[in-house]
Amino acid sequence: MSDFSSLAQQFCEFYYNQFDTDRSQLGNLYRDQSMLTFEASQTQGPKNIVEKLCGLGFSKVKHRISTLDAQPASPNGDVLVMVTGELLIDEEQNAQRYSQVFHLIPDAGSYYVFNDIFRLNYS
Amino acid sequence: MSDFSSLAQQFCEFYYNQFDTDRSQLGNLYRDQSMLTFEASQTQGPKNIVEKLCGLGFSKVKHRISTLDAQPASPNGDVLVMVTGELLIDEEQNAQRYSQVFHLIPDAGSYYVFNDIFRLNYS
Repeated sequence: MSDFSSLAQQFCEFYYNQFDTDRSQLGNLYRDQSMLTFEASQTQGPKNIVEKLCGLGFSKVKHRISTLDAQPASPNGDVLVMVTGELLIDEEQNAQRYSQVFHLIPDAGSYYVFNDIFRLNYS
Repeated sequence: MSDFSSLAQQFCEFYYNQFDTDRSQLGNLYRDQSMLTFEASQTQGPKNIVEKLCGLGFSKVKHRISTLDAQPASPNGDVLVMVTGELLIDEEQNAQRYSQVFHLIPDAGSYYVFNDIFRLNYS
């Protein structure tokens, strides 16, 4: 597996595990210039992004990745990731399908999320 | 509507219209460094990408955009676009849902596709 591909996989596993365990701690993965578009609502910066995610009206959530594709996104080591998957909310029986994109940028030995776009897939 | 957002919309309308009319002409939208991951199969460069798209086993196709989200992706004017939508192939009655990401880079007064990731969404 190529480097950007395994990086993308590790990142997503970490991200969704953190999201599902305690999403108030996701702020470390964003920087001031980071942007999130969540169901068409746009926010910027770690504080606003975490507020947005914590304000979503559910307490229990579990993400399951169906597909994960990654491509190098710059000569500097940026990685573009597209995930499709399912999420199960609170006590609901039916999973909802979603698509999400992360643009990851290397920073001090790790990566932060520069761009994050999330959409539920209604059928 | 912000510039990157209207650019993304115009680009996607043009792209899918060209795809549905004559996808052999999509090469102009890619450069040598452009990458496509189509259902986990990776190709690079306009010639290979067009070969891949033309080799898909259908003759008639119609894309319909359901959601389109865009974010600025660099200080140079790059734009990141995530599309979710439906496509109808040949004489099939049931549309298939898909997700697609484009990373667009400004070049000589226009934009080219640097990164392109496509996935069908199976439910």
